[in-house]
Amino acid sequence: MQTEFCKQLGVEAPIFAFTHCRDVVVEVSKAGGIGVLGAVGFTAEQLKEELDWIDAHIGDHIYGVDTAIPQKYEGMDKTSPEELVAMLQDAIPEQHRKFAEKMLTDAGVPAWPEGDDEVTLSFSAIQAQALVDEALTRPKCRMIVNALGTPPEDVIKQVQDSGRLIGALAGRLKHGIAHKNAGLDFVVCQGGEGGGHAGEVSSMVLWPQMIDAIAPLPVLAAGGIGNGRQMLAAMSMGAQGVWMGSRWLISNEAQAEPAQRDSYKSATSEDTIRSCSFTGKTARMLKNDWTDAWEREDTPDPLPMPLQGYLTFDAVRRTHRYAGSGDCQKIAFNPVGQVVGQMNEESSCRDIMYDLLTEYADALDRVNSISSAG
Amino acid sequence: MQTEFCKQLGVEAPIFAFTHCRDVVVEVSKAGGIGVLGAVGFTAEQLKEELDWIDAHIGDHIYGVDTAIPQKYEGMDKTSPEELVAMLQDAIPEQHRKFAEKMLTDAGVPAWPEGDDEVTLSFSAIQAQALVDEALTRPKCRMIVNALGTPPEDVIKQVQDSGRLIGALAGRLKHGIAHKNAGLDFVVCQGGEGGGHAGEVSSMVLWPQMIDAIAPLPVLAAGGIGNGRQMLAAMSMGAQGVWMGSRWLISNEAQAEPAQRDSYKSATSEDTIRSCSFTGKTARMLKNDWTDAWEREDTPDPLPMPLQGYLTFDAVRRTHRYAGSGDCQKIAFNPVGQVVGQMNEESSCRDIMYDLLTEYADALDRVNSISSAG
Repeated sequence: MQTEFCKQLGVEAPIFAFTHCRDVVVEVSKAGGIGVLGAVGFTAEQLKEELDWIDAHIGDHIYGVDTAIPQKYEGMDKTSPEELVAMLQDAIPEQHRKFAEKMLTDAGVPAWPEGDDEVTLSFSAIQAQALVDEALTRPKCRMIVNALGTPPEDVIKQVQDSGRLIGALAGRLKHGIAHKNAGLDFVVCQGGEGGGHAGEVSSMVLWPQMIDAIAPLPVLAAGGIGNGRQMLAAMSMGAQGVWMGSRWLISNEAQAEPAQRDSYKSATSEDTIRSCSFTGKTARMLKNDWTDAWEREDTPDPLPMPLQGYLTFDAVRRTHRYAGSGDCQKIAFNPVGQVVGQMNEESSCRDIMYDLLTEYADALDRVNSISSAG
Repeated sequence: MQTEFCKQLGVEAPIFAFTHCRDVVVEVSKAGGIGVLGAVGFTAEQLKEELDWIDAHIGDHIYGVDTAIPQKYEGMDKTSPEELVAMLQDAIPEQHRKFAEKMLTDAGVPAWPEGDDEVTLSFSAIQAQALVDEALTRPKCRMIVNALGTPPEDVIKQVQDSGRLIGALAGRLKHGIAHKNAGLDFVVCQGGEGGGHAGEVSSMVLWPQMIDAIAPLPVLAAGGIGNGRQMLAAMSMGAQGVWMGSRWLISNEAQAEPAQRDSYKSATSEDTIRSCSFTGKTARMLKNDWTDAWEREDTPDPLPMPLQGYLTFDAVRRTHRYAGSGDCQKIAFNPVGQVVGQMNEESSCRDIMYDLLTEYADALDRVNSISSAG
């Protein structure tokens, strides 16, 4: 089972696993799909370390790297990362800092250890360029994906000249069309039920519109896919592959504390919310006291991106590392799509891949038997 | 192409057309699907007239009737329809009446003609019981669907004893489970992208969960289906049929003024909103000045159901009849799902049915060819 896009890329099964965990990248690629490492938040040094590990463990298989490459602006090359950090720090009101810190303290979440205080500024072109440069030194990295917006012209050229494919996420029709006009090789089209920065139109409605609007550009379907029947639904509508993020969060290989896994496993599909409270831009995550708190009238409003993300950087890393401390899960950052309601059991990436493909085949048999009846 | 549920019902194609227009019911049933007349808002006399017409035109084909049968409560049989009207009228604040009337007047929407002043109170059990009784006198009416909630026990028994099937809409998992426990024959499971009173979980995520949760009860998939690829997606996930409402709104046979059709045809999938402003319960419709107005802080809040629906009864009928007058479309009630973005051309119900089945077959061929490749 191979789509045209899979053939172009050299992958057996049209399953794209978006993940921040290198082990998931390796396991999915080895099982016939392709792991795509989410590198937003990594420094170039961290990415180098992760890719060294992946290259050493993935065998002859290939993988991708996902990052956030903003459009460039006049004078941005004159600002050093250190200057950017200082600018952002100055721009965050003291009231916001105190409000966030108080919630962390009240919930009993320990402070980040002294000395381990590295700050990354992923949402800057300087950082993103360094990540792309690093990824392009790896022969087994065959695709670059931009998480937010159309990448700048020179990055598109750089990736394509290296013989690799470059694509980008799109949660709105007009974004997909802009990607096509910019010359990207594919689009990851994410419906509103998806985790992270999704739009408002659902997968069922958005995917076929996107596929028609940017044909013959390949579309990978994202948002709401966690099993083989949902995968068949996406392929039925004309997708060239499925892009899944949430499903791997409770895989055995994911780096996540038991308390965070429990939050995902016990949540229903009604327990997510689209909230600006972590990144400053609407993203889907588990609803909790943190997401409620930033919506109340008597509390500070979330700052625009990238300020809110910079403000909550500490909350994100602390609630992940100390997921089981005190009431941490009441304020933790647990990004996930509505598909969380069907994620109830932990299993290996290999088993998830096997289940996806088996259920896909069974569902296709069933549909074929209906169509030949009556 | 016939599912088990279709066989049970005696229908060729698993396409269920929800519509308020008798012509659509007849045309869809004659084309191999089944039309389901939405009778909410009809008096028993009006329903009799519509069903007489349908019976006379539908030939040997069958149809369904959809209504809203609330659970019964102590003493409700002691209240006459006239007393209910008076109670509801008393319960609506003068401020709300004036606000609604001013918007209609400012938009240049003519008043309803004197003498044509019949008030229906569909959301009362007295009314709903009369509709069910009327429907059950018709041999060609083979299914009853409840639009909101689980129908009362005696109505379920009444319908089933007559040899017909009874089902109900469900936008949340727990509602579908309640329907099953009450002994219904099928569930129409509607994702959040659907028109009318849908929930928040999308079709892609909700359908397979519902199918698993209430198996072996048949599930009809609703919300986000307007073409054959979307239909195949629904069947891929295990639905026994597709329930479509929006798609028929701009069919040649629909009763709708050109101005309302134009609003639907020009809308994108980003132009709908879930709003309480017409029925008092969140329902998806085209976003406009009316839906905005009831959300502002300086305006009255929508009343709870059924009060808001009673308050806006006049706005609904006037904005439908005088759809092209003045700025009517800026305040008109145009209920529809996100699928509206792909509804750009008017055509006959027969052509819509043909396109659905042809695209379904083509999409299935394409998926089969992917699966046999590689």
